[in-house]
Amino acid sequence: MNHQAPRSGPAARDATMPTYRDAESAAARLAGVAHRTPVVTSATADRLLGASLFFKCENLQRVGAFKFRGAYNAISQLAPPQRRAGVVAFSSGNHAQAIALAGNLLSVPTTILMPLDAPAQKVEATRGYGGRIVTYDRYTQDREALGRELAEEQGLTLIPPFNHRDVIAGQGTAAKELFEEVGELDILLVPVGGGGLISGCALAASVLSPSCAVIGVEPAAGNDVQQSVSRGEIVRIETPRTIADGAQTNAPGAITFDIIRRLVREIITVDDRQLVAAMKFFASRMKLLVEPTGCLAAAAALEQVLPMRGRRVGVLVSGGNVDLARFCALAGQAD
Amino acid sequence: MNHQAPRSGPAARDATMPTYRDAESAAARLAGVAHRTPVVTSATADRLLGASLFFKCENLQRVGAFKFRGAYNAISQLAPPQRRAGVVAFSSGNHAQAIALAGNLLSVPTTILMPLDAPAQKVEATRGYGGRIVTYDRYTQDREALGRELAEEQGLTLIPPFNHRDVIAGQGTAAKELFEEVGELDILLVPVGGGGLISGCALAASVLSPSCAVIGVEPAAGNDVQQSVSRGEIVRIETPRTIADGAQTNAPGAITFDIIRRLVREIITVDDRQLVAAMKFFASRMKLLVEPTGCLAAAAALEQVLPMRGRRVGVLVSGGNVDLARFCALAGQAD
Repeated sequence: MNHQAPRSGPAARDATMPTYRDAESAAARLAGVAHRTPVVTSATADRLLGASLFFKCENLQRVGAFKFRGAYNAISQLAPPQRRAGVVAFSSGNHAQAIALAGNLLSVPTTILMPLDAPAQKVEATRGYGGRIVTYDRYTQDREALGRELAEEQGLTLIPPFNHRDVIAGQGTAAKELFEEVGELDILLVPVGGGGLISGCALAASVLSPSCAVIGVEPAAGNDVQQSVSRGEIVRIETPRTIADGAQTNAPGAITFDIIRRLVREIITVDDRQLVAAMKFFASRMKLLVEPTGCLAAAAALEQVLPMRGRRVGVLVSGGNVDLARFCALAGQAD
Repeated sequence: MNHQAPRSGPAARDATMPTYRDAESAAARLAGVAHRTPVVTSATADRLLGASLFFKCENLQRVGAFKFRGAYNAISQLAPPQRRAGVVAFSSGNHAQAIALAGNLLSVPTTILMPLDAPAQKVEATRGYGGRIVTYDRYTQDREALGRELAEEQGLTLIPPFNHRDVIAGQGTAAKELFEEVGELDILLVPVGGGGLISGCALAASVLSPSCAVIGVEPAAGNDVQQSVSRGEIVRIETPRTIADGAQTNAPGAITFDIIRRLVREIITVDDRQLVAAMKFFASRMKLLVEPTGCLAAAAALEQVLPMRGRRVGVLVSGGNVDLARFCALAGQAD
């Protein structure tokens, strides 16, 4: 395929703002390192909805989530002195594990700030991938300030979870692979936390499937991006209560908000009950373990939150990291 | 690739005995109908075992198991009068659903004999795929006799679950796809119930990866095939008690036993505790829901029942049809 270079005057190109070209370069860096995850279909889902659904299974990605793509893409572009000094990230979730593994593979030391009360399993997984854990008290300490402090004191490079050109470009490779495998789509549904995944995916769609409506799905309890888009400015919300722990963000970032405003058709929401129903559908009908956040896009499809009849619909399944005991507790809830 | 025709004198070709050619024809019939299931890898499993494992995910096949391949291949070859009259099968498990769906897709009426006490969910699933259910009392009635009776009375064609040329040829397409995707392997581990899957896979291996050791894995409590191979004749055992409900067979069939004797290197066993450990590994590390029978081959790998260091090992994951409540009850067991 032949893509146009972005039209821009001499000063118009903002170096922090990713383009589809960055996702293409990311794909080259990730080749043979990240999994090219399978796209699966479900005759049952198609029959239920009268549509053709294509599920891009990032729950089968390394570390169990798309986050590996962005983390690896970002770390691999650091200059040698930065690589030697190492990187720092704050996350109690999939970004932490992704940074730890990517650092390990690239021989870059990683420091992960995690709350004192982070689940032991997640701490263990992150340490298992080779990350150095630094804990903080989430009730009395500001993790962002702490991260900046560590970065300055020890010369570490901070890799933020979503608001970063190389992170966004890396995440975009998920949609790039999807379009390459199944062709153009009418609709692409993408889970939205801070907006890193959907920003990258929207960049890919804008070039590979320009008429595709890219639609973001947030938890109803935590619709900071929906509110921001509707107000036309970044809205900050309280940390939402939702089982979609990967989407408990307070606000989109400046970069992700800009891309979402330009390239995303709409942001819709689903509630926790709908997430559980989708999680059970994945397990019982599709034999896939998907974490609640990973069910956001699928829940919107299965609940027919938007009209899809006769359409070709991509569904980003963003991750599968849910503790088995937690999964079974949720799956045991009445319908 | 160029394959030799089987060497055989004028009368040596037994029409009931499948060859790799039959699996090739089956693949053509299944193209666009069966899923070409993904092959997934796990860096964690590879590191644990010091080997390269390739998991062929038939839990992601239609109806949740490889059985769809053989059922569709068999029904699609019936002559028009047989197709009009319909087919009959006895099974309380994946073969029933596979026959019902394949019949539905081919507009062939299907009758499934199921025990009166079959789980409601399985009865519903089979009916949902379009099968007519006929129940029998498993304590007082002989399902094979009943099946033959129905077949004679109503002119139905009986499609047995494993001991049948076209069923075996269909199952072989799973291994054919695996070798086509990842190339030759040193070892191929395959779950064994009645031997239909491993027979087809061994035919594929004999042509596509001739030096590959094809190894069957049975539940320790139900090692009818292992005993048969070691005695050199078909051994019949009592219905075994094991959580691997798809491998609760009493004996291999004449055809599967013949192929296994010729082409399978060895039959090994794992116990129920090892199956549960593998099931949990699949769910927590690989985000895949796999039924206990589907874990047979993976359990043998993860428990290092045989030496694998440095080898390229294919692992057939045969199915994912386990009720969620049952899955959670098993996953909740102590390690």
